[in-house]
Amino acid sequence: MIGPDDVRAAARVLDGVAHRTPVIRSRTLGDGIVLKPENLQRGGAFKFRGAYNKISSLPHGARVVAFSSGNHAQAVALASSLLGAQATILMPEDAPESKLAATRGYGADVVLYDRYTGDRETIAARMAEELSAEIVPPYDDPLIAAGQGTAALELLEDAGVVDTLVVPVGGGGLIAGCAAIAKELGVRRVVGVEPEAGNDWQQSFAAGEIVAIDVPRTIADGLQTHAPGVVTWEVASRLVDEIVTVTDEQMVEAMRFAFERLKLVIEPSGAVGLAAVREGIVEGASIGIVISGGNVAADRFADLIGS
Amino acid sequence: MIGPDDVRAAARVLDGVAHRTPVIRSRTLGDGIVLKPENLQRGGAFKFRGAYNKISSLPHGARVVAFSSGNHAQAVALASSLLGAQATILMPEDAPESKLAATRGYGADVVLYDRYTGDRETIAARMAEELSAEIVPPYDDPLIAAGQGTAALELLEDAGVVDTLVVPVGGGGLIAGCAAIAKELGVRRVVGVEPEAGNDWQQSFAAGEIVAIDVPRTIADGLQTHAPGVVTWEVASRLVDEIVTVTDEQMVEAMRFAFERLKLVIEPSGAVGLAAVREGIVEGASIGIVISGGNVAADRFADLIGS
Repeated sequence: MIGPDDVRAAARVLDGVAHRTPVIRSRTLGDGIVLKPENLQRGGAFKFRGAYNKISSLPHGARVVAFSSGNHAQAVALASSLLGAQATILMPEDAPESKLAATRGYGADVVLYDRYTGDRETIAARMAEELSAEIVPPYDDPLIAAGQGTAALELLEDAGVVDTLVVPVGGGGLIAGCAAIAKELGVRRVVGVEPEAGNDWQQSFAAGEIVAIDVPRTIADGLQTHAPGVVTWEVASRLVDEIVTVTDEQMVEAMRFAFERLKLVIEPSGAVGLAAVREGIVEGASIGIVISGGNVAADRFADLIGS
Repeated sequence: MIGPDDVRAAARVLDGVAHRTPVIRSRTLGDGIVLKPENLQRGGAFKFRGAYNKISSLPHGARVVAFSSGNHAQAVALASSLLGAQATILMPEDAPESKLAATRGYGADVVLYDRYTGDRETIAARMAEELSAEIVPPYDDPLIAAGQGTAALELLEDAGVVDTLVVPVGGGGLIAGCAAIAKELGVRRVVGVEPEAGNDWQQSFAAGEIVAIDVPRTIADGLQTHAPGVVTWEVASRLVDEIVTVTDEQMVEAMRFAFERLKLVIEPSGAVGLAAVREGIVEGASIGIVISGGNVAADRFADLIGS
């Protein structure tokens, strides 16, 4: 259960710590469309907001454990280093060397596991118990979701209230927090966007309850969740108006547009909202789009764009 | 002759028209280093500032002529469309199709010439006479330089006064305007950065007068000038403290860093200041870096980075 006051409280915690990312407009994209580029956030993604908000609630010097191959790992490592927490991050042994290095670079201990033989949640739970550590989950937590919602709060404060807010959906932490504050501030419609290959949220909305799917095959590695979270579903199922999907090709096209016209580097998961608007899948009198992150290596970017 | 009040006047002209680009900080880059990312400016480069400031001084409906294969062409076309001016842009017939299309997309007439047989300044002068049009020069003009200086004014207002300001140098419009306001506001040192292959400014500083060189071979296509401008030299020779150079390889390394860590797309010319600071060529207690532009096609970027 989170509400707008939880997001406002998180904003106070993050003030002066998280970057207040700018509002970006582009005539080419269209009048009335504003972007919140969280790829410019510390750690390269919105994930820093929730991680910092969560870890700041723990005693100084606390031990934390997180499992992630992506943006959440770096966010927990960075937030921990700023807050004096001891972070141990469980990462798959075949994670890109750049991500391992970035996570260690923030001062975290990295523990590797074999993603084909080990279950990361079980391993993380055992590690947390052995270390007397708190698990910082990637999304299914009220303080995490409230922290992520500050992205929408800033957007609406800086650009004014929009008619439609468009948000990527993976585990649902970002959209739950954003919807909680956006609806309070008068946004008419909140739309979630997920990969066509992994529409667990769309299926869950249709069923009226959480539906789990196989882990989807998509280039949007940040959105490869197989089911909505429990905390995030409780909020989003009440406040989110619609879930739409985009294809991998549409994400790549949006990444190219962002590169060439906006001069912004966006990872596939971060591009889904922009793709949905560019393709006319989402329309509105005025639209705010949350760009969730930009952590994609230059070589992989070139591979994706160069097709 | 331009001074700080000319830059302040330009800032009033540009208020609400140019993007007030954000200030970007990065812990990886270093504490005390702030970036002014003019790649996020309208048209993808700082050039819009000067072009708009210049064209707004002309009567409504005026005809303007500009010659450019790059950012200045798009800046003049865009500023003209906003101000109701009639723009004709002289571009080389082998200019990239994307740049021709972008310039036409802003509503300008494009006239092509053969860069191997025609002299663009002569052709432009003849066109301007035939059309009773005003030439909007790329840099050697007080209103152009004053407009470019608003980038530094905003940076120093938003980030506070820095010890050292680092600015790319091609024709000198950007650094002349930036130095005029920066020195007034208390910046101790203004450093210009140009390609090692084309150090016309460095040679001019050493000689104490304008020195012309052959058009340099460098990936920094925006900095391929062969001599300082007359107006810009008058200002910069008095106010700029030092000119340093970077290699093409150092620019590429800075472009990669900006892509992977800052999530910003920077063209080679735009990366020279970042390169100089990253390589330790410029140091300072606090440093402001103007990133001049980001107009580089995704394919060319991949070619440059992928080496």
